[in-house]
Amino acid sequence: DEGVPGDAKQEANAFQNLEIVKVLREDSKLKLITVLGRFTGVAGKEAVVLLERLPFHKEKVADVLSSEDGRTEETLKNDIYSTHNVFSSRTLADCKATVIYPATSKHIDKYTEHVPFIVRETPELFRKVTKPCLESSKFSLQWVLNILEKKTESDRIVFEDPDPETGFILLPDMKWNRSDLESLYLVAIVHKHGIHSIRDLRREHLPLLKNILVKGKAAIKEKFNIPGSKLRIYFHYQPSYGHLHVHFTHVKFDAPGSDCLRAHLLEDVMENLEMDDQFYSKKTLIYVVRENEDLYKAYKAAGYFDE
Amino acid sequence: DEGVPGDAKQEANAFQNLEIVKVLREDSKLKLITVLGRFTGVAGKEAVVLLERLPFHKEKVADVLSSEDGRTEETLKNDIYSTHNVFSSRTLADCKATVIYPATSKHIDKYTEHVPFIVRETPELFRKVTKPCLESSKFSLQWVLNILEKKTESDRIVFEDPDPETGFILLPDMKWNRSDLESLYLVAIVHKHGIHSIRDLRREHLPLLKNILVKGKAAIKEKFNIPGSKLRIYFHYQPSYGHLHVHFTHVKFDAPGSDCLRAHLLEDVMENLEMDDQFYSKKTLIYVVRENEDLYKAYKAAGYFDE
Repeated sequence: DEGVPGDAKQEANAFQNLEIVKVLREDSKLKLITVLGRFTGVAGKEAVVLLERLPFHKEKVADVLSSEDGRTEETLKNDIYSTHNVFSSRTLADCKATVIYPATSKHIDKYTEHVPFIVRETPELFRKVTKPCLESSKFSLQWVLNILEKKTESDRIVFEDPDPETGFILLPDMKWNRSDLESLYLVAIVHKHGIHSIRDLRREHLPLLKNILVKGKAAIKEKFNIPGSKLRIYFHYQPSYGHLHVHFTHVKFDAPGSDCLRAHLLEDVMENLEMDDQFYSKKTLIYVVRENEDLYKAYKAAGYFDE
Repeated sequence: DEGVPGDAKQEANAFQNLEIVKVLREDSKLKLITVLGRFTGVAGKEAVVLLERLPFHKEKVADVLSSEDGRTEETLKNDIYSTHNVFSSRTLADCKATVIYPATSKHIDKYTEHVPFIVRETPELFRKVTKPCLESSKFSLQWVLNILEKKTESDRIVFEDPDPETGFILLPDMKWNRSDLESLYLVAIVHKHGIHSIRDLRREHLPLLKNILVKGKAAIKEKFNIPGSKLRIYFHYQPSYGHLHVHFTHVKFDAPGSDCLRAHLLEDVMENLEMDDQFYSKKTLIYVVRENEDLYKAYKAAGYFDE
């Protein structure tokens, strides 16, 4: 079993005996790659390996650049511009590897890139395809109820307005480490039940939305000293769960799901409802579905992707 | 002058004599850092150095992992999960450095991160602050005219509809390398003059918008075999130049400017205009300005950021 990560001796190459079966995902912008592999001589078991380049640290960049041990190679020179390949010093790690071993098919699926498709959901498609699909999926919302009833995570609450019609609980999103303010990510979950997404919003919900906007901003200003001019405040459509919630992220943070194909600014939603009570019952909503999702399968079965 | 990039011998460390003056920008997600430096013994001149981790390549990932020369260090072990620091082999470059030397203050400004602020531009603020500021800036649109009149870049045109009212030229954005289809980035520039941004759009422009949507998608399907279900099609507000244009990017590409604080889907814009001719003359438009921009200075001078 030499070379299997669990047994690796420090300083040796833990992956020396890893055979790569296939690449599961590759992201050149984020500089990461995920592969499926097998250790030579170990039958049947598979490993998922995530390789990610490490970020530079302010404190250490001088070491990277000026190390006597490092080497560079000029690849282009034009006037005042030049580019170089940099070979790191042996004393600084440049990658992080995360290994899951043995990996099940669920692990492999989770770390595999799934092909995205854009859906243009008209009100008719919502009724005929989206709604029946979401209803049959019946994801449990028990964890949301636990938060609202303070059975779990009550120590994490940043702010609460307990009003059953216009109230909400504001707490950190799981993705936020709660220390780096420039990647601040909070979520406001409404106390009111039965609003699944922005599709359901009408003028009657304006007091709720306004309350979240005003009190959410005030709480973040008070607790974290971040003003409203630094906050991106939005819904997801489709949301990842069907109980209305609003995302608050720092404008400097390139938050996942802040793309125009998923994020709807709270203030835009309020303005649209002020103009027309039926805005979101009439609107075509455009978003991405992925081939491993039930919603993709429902649209495919309905013939939506036939061209 | 030993150690200045222009004179660097291959295999030596070109940055060994670089003193770091300060960090201009740091992005841990994209794994890059930009620093301002001075070469020891070279008076007065400054260098901007962009250090960026190199992406992994499918073909070479086996070399990274299984190199005899590489080393790993286990940093965590919990059940089936483990993490490792990976020290690359000396034979594979892991960073790219781009050097600008000597760098002027304009170079330094370009590569410095500028603090973002969110503006909520009501129609009144548009009239009082934005419009006068944009008019006084008077950025030259000569390069756009050159494209429309085919004085430059005519060999790059992907598709043209020459109609002066509803026509446009579709061509690759400068950011696209024109080979990787999953990072496809095209821009449709309208032939019609005088439409600065979505703020100016009215129902009368619907035939123009519909033409761009239909013929743009058809051209991309024909030339690149990418269907409409893979295309993010949107305006920027604020746009980077005041002559109406539409962005077409591949849904897999996390394109800069596709955030909900800047991108407005073409089909949403069309639907809003169908509902209300004055939609964009009445709407509050929300976007980011940066402290080095004229628009930020204009809003600051108007007292907008006083809290």
